[in-house]
Amino acid sequence: MDHRVSADDAVHSSWDNSLEPALTVEPGDVVRFDCRDATNGQLGPGSTAEDIAAIDVEPIHPLTGPVAIEGARPGDVLEAELLELEHGGWGQTLILPGAMELGLLADEFPEPDLYVWELEDGVARFVDGIEVPIDPFPGVIGVAPAENGSHSTFPPRSVGGNLDIKHLTAGSRLFLPVAVEDALFSIGDCHAAQGDGEVCGTGIEAPMTVTCRFGLRSEPSIEQPQFETTGPFTPTGRDEPMYGTTGVGDDLREASGVAIRQLIDHMEAERGLERAEAYILCSAAVDLKVSEAVNAPNWVVSAYLPESIFPEECQRSRGLER
Amino acid sequence: MDHRVSADDAVHSSWDNSLEPALTVEPGDVVRFDCRDATNGQLGPGSTAEDIAAIDVEPIHPLTGPVAIEGARPGDVLEAELLELEHGGWGQTLILPGAMELGLLADEFPEPDLYVWELEDGVARFVDGIEVPIDPFPGVIGVAPAENGSHSTFPPRSVGGNLDIKHLTAGSRLFLPVAVEDALFSIGDCHAAQGDGEVCGTGIEAPMTVTCRFGLRSEPSIEQPQFETTGPFTPTGRDEPMYGTTGVGDDLREASGVAIRQLIDHMEAERGLERAEAYILCSAAVDLKVSEAVNAPNWVVSAYLPESIFPEECQRSRGLER
Repeated sequence: MDHRVSADDAVHSSWDNSLEPALTVEPGDVVRFDCRDATNGQLGPGSTAEDIAAIDVEPIHPLTGPVAIEGARPGDVLEAELLELEHGGWGQTLILPGAMELGLLADEFPEPDLYVWELEDGVARFVDGIEVPIDPFPGVIGVAPAENGSHSTFPPRSVGGNLDIKHLTAGSRLFLPVAVEDALFSIGDCHAAQGDGEVCGTGIEAPMTVTCRFGLRSEPSIEQPQFETTGPFTPTGRDEPMYGTTGVGDDLREASGVAIRQLIDHMEAERGLERAEAYILCSAAVDLKVSEAVNAPNWVVSAYLPESIFPEECQRSRGLER
Repeated sequence: MDHRVSADDAVHSSWDNSLEPALTVEPGDVVRFDCRDATNGQLGPGSTAEDIAAIDVEPIHPLTGPVAIEGARPGDVLEAELLELEHGGWGQTLILPGAMELGLLADEFPEPDLYVWELEDGVARFVDGIEVPIDPFPGVIGVAPAENGSHSTFPPRSVGGNLDIKHLTAGSRLFLPVAVEDALFSIGDCHAAQGDGEVCGTGIEAPMTVTCRFGLRSEPSIEQPQFETTGPFTPTGRDEPMYGTTGVGDDLREASGVAIRQLIDHMEAERGLERAEAYILCSAAVDLKVSEAVNAPNWVVSAYLPESIFPEECQRSRGLER
């Protein structure tokens, strides 16, 4: 059976297992969710960086739901198959430091900033002809936690939530550990694209409609979310040139910051981007990989910038003269 | 000009800027390095897990070099272009806990273990018909540190070393910050394949011959290694099905362990692998990605298992009955 849930009827911006379900469905049912953008409409296609100061943090991550899945019991696994994600033609990436200290390099980017992306013909358009392919996914997707009370949507949890896994694209299946009766599934914070790491704190945030099919199993149980995906793992979906920087250090998050800082240096020097532009582009299109996490006391994180997002005439290797 | 350096003539197992160069070359020169396996020949194709107890840790990471690059000065950038890597038909993956506490899940795998891989027809053969594509790279590649004295080859450093960046495959270029006169470049610890993370502590360790072309530039300087690569970013070099697990937590390394532990659970339950086999396969073929590092207090690391390494008849989605 097919259903529809609109944010106008069922929106919430905290996780709470006492929320009344907007809808009750059965395993196998398909539900279409209308999801607002992460700021709950406080910013729009015409917004500028000046509008960020006025943002109320409270309604951030408006989630559509919850939807009760009939028969789901704690310990079960809820499957959400992502069938389709449709954006509305625009998205935004925010640098939102200050009180929130959002972002891997929050100390180095104290000024709020905003870039509004036009989403068209499968790409998100940036400055200087740079185009990031659109591969939409829900940033927040999960079920209600076992603990009673109201819980922030900011941190990801064992029951899912703000996972920001960029590979949860259409065709993927997410498996969530059910913690309460009827699971109470909610979704929102959709991104048109994002790099692994979401380093400036936001992806390409966009209002979106997401269609999911639900499934349910009892065994084997899982501890934290699991998933099946076919990517994309590169912008073109196949091997392509990347420029990489490394962060070597004894803490993987600090090392991630070192790698991103060096990539921003590189994009400023070699690509002529402003530092804030480079930071935003890293958040939208650069992937952080854990190269090694076993050679104590230092680990290595590498940051990968795909060459293919630059205009063709600007794609190049930086090989030395020989 | 073309040169050759053999480990028989020039091998060292610590970083030390007072080592005499085995060879002095000019920018533009090509050097072929014969590199021993990481144990310096203490294990071979016929070794078993019982042989691990007798391993002497001291000679681990025998590096071939150092090679002096004429004209290199501190602050310069040394380019090493990887032209070719040739293996010798076998490799090994070790679980080596104990005194070394090597591996992301060292506490859970206290017993040493060894898998010897046959390398043939572009793949490394594992149990149950599982095949990991061979994409060789040097695990250790770097220049001498500025600090005098003898330094362990285990931790990676700002001047490179044990980086374990799996994408430093043939055709890639690595840029290293020169710290001493003539750079003093060394290389070794080659891997036939490895997952991002090298989670059990070793990749597919193999003796190898590596051919590099050197270049040199003075500006712009770099803080830590940088590189250009074309991957491969998936085993097939294009988008393909992956099974993912997540680690949600406030420390990226611990979260990496949580993701890998759940993937081992999955491979034990769904693929019938022994836990130690699954751990070894994770180290050889599973990639750790930082999904997000900005939603305090929790970050998300995801572990990706490619479907394509399993025999065709065993490749499947784990979708639920509906």
